[in-house]
Amino acid sequence: MLKNRNCIIRLSRYKNALYRLNALGFVRVFSDNLADAAGVTASAVRKDFSLFGISGNKKAGYQIEELLEKLNSILGKDKVQKVIVAGCGNLASALIKYKGFEKEGIKIVAGFDIDPAKHNRSNNVPVLPLEELKGFVRNQGIKIGIIAVPEAAAGQVAETMFKNGIKGIVNFAPIRLKAPEDCVVNYVNLEHELENLVYFVNALSKTKKKI
Amino acid sequence: MLKNRNCIIRLSRYKNALYRLNALGFVRVFSDNLADAAGVTASAVRKDFSLFGISGNKKAGYQIEELLEKLNSILGKDKVQKVIVAGCGNLASALIKYKGFEKEGIKIVAGFDIDPAKHNRSNNVPVLPLEELKGFVRNQGIKIGIIAVPEAAAGQVAETMFKNGIKGIVNFAPIRLKAPEDCVVNYVNLEHELENLVYFVNALSKTKKKI
Repeated sequence: MLKNRNCIIRLSRYKNALYRLNALGFVRVFSDNLADAAGVTASAVRKDFSLFGISGNKKAGYQIEELLEKLNSILGKDKVQKVIVAGCGNLASALIKYKGFEKEGIKIVAGFDIDPAKHNRSNNVPVLPLEELKGFVRNQGIKIGIIAVPEAAAGQVAETMFKNGIKGIVNFAPIRLKAPEDCVVNYVNLEHELENLVYFVNALSKTKKKI
Repeated sequence: MLKNRNCIIRLSRYKNALYRLNALGFVRVFSDNLADAAGVTASAVRKDFSLFGISGNKKAGYQIEELLEKLNSILGKDKVQKVIVAGCGNLASALIKYKGFEKEGIKIVAGFDIDPAKHNRSNNVPVLPLEELKGFVRNQGIKIGIIAVPEAAAGQVAETMFKNGIKGIVNFAPIRLKAPEDCVVNYVNLEHELENLVYFVNALSKTKKKI
């Protein structure tokens, strides 16, 4: 039952909102609440849930804890997912130090880099030579990788990852990757996000001037 | 002439591909080349360009340098865009150190944080107390901000930004922001990207087992 990317991203948003409500002591939630939190309509929330066989009660809404359990199970949060990162510059260091992943059941277990100055086997999250990526991924059965190497190296690193069992990549390098049919690549491009804003901010200010 | 987000993101991708081709010494490019680089069809490339009045020659394609100039002008790359970042943790440090923005005409000019231990006025990119954000944004006429503060603080920081002239925000905090009508928020949520991959990788492996 393979849903589209946007639907899954919305489930993550609902789940975040549910954690917040739960922490505040709420027990029930309505599709309207979740709609506000995720920036969609209430009927979109109900449609998303119905795709996964989740239904609420019109008057009583959804039980938050029950809903969280179901969403975590759908999103694969019931077991820890090990992730590796290739390219250990500033961005990767920030990702490795980031506390937010663990509560989502995501654990970065190793970094890989070509620069010997960055290697450190005794770190909590070791940084290893890039040539060890292949064996590590195979031995540990890693399915998810992050690419944070320079653009020129990204294609080859992705190929190595896919050849050795990686099925999903988050790619920070500003280049499209060739992925086998049974694999997924998600792109995060911070330059494009900012560039996009620059365009809209300029366009909006021009529109305003015309009025 | 306000186009949709995806179209503008594609223009950024075309532009990246053009820089690479230019660096390799190529002079002309065809919509098929750009389609491959951006992961779309050739007719989508031509449609995107025609929206901005850019037309190629069927036999000769597009002149790379001319096309780059036009795209940079559309994307507002002809002048430097000053950006500030609120919340100076590991992610913000990585963004401040990142070399890729400058070639896109984007310059992070200051960071803001509530933690006095992080303040440093003599840095190349100074880190200032959060309460100075308001005055800085007004005085310097900053239009674009990055939010990298914890979730609980993001709403208030966004409000301060919008009240003082910021028109576009890249938000890394896992929460929806309320934006005035003439403002834009782009969301980057690394947890959701990874969570999304976990779902697809699990779903794909289940599909495979069934076959």
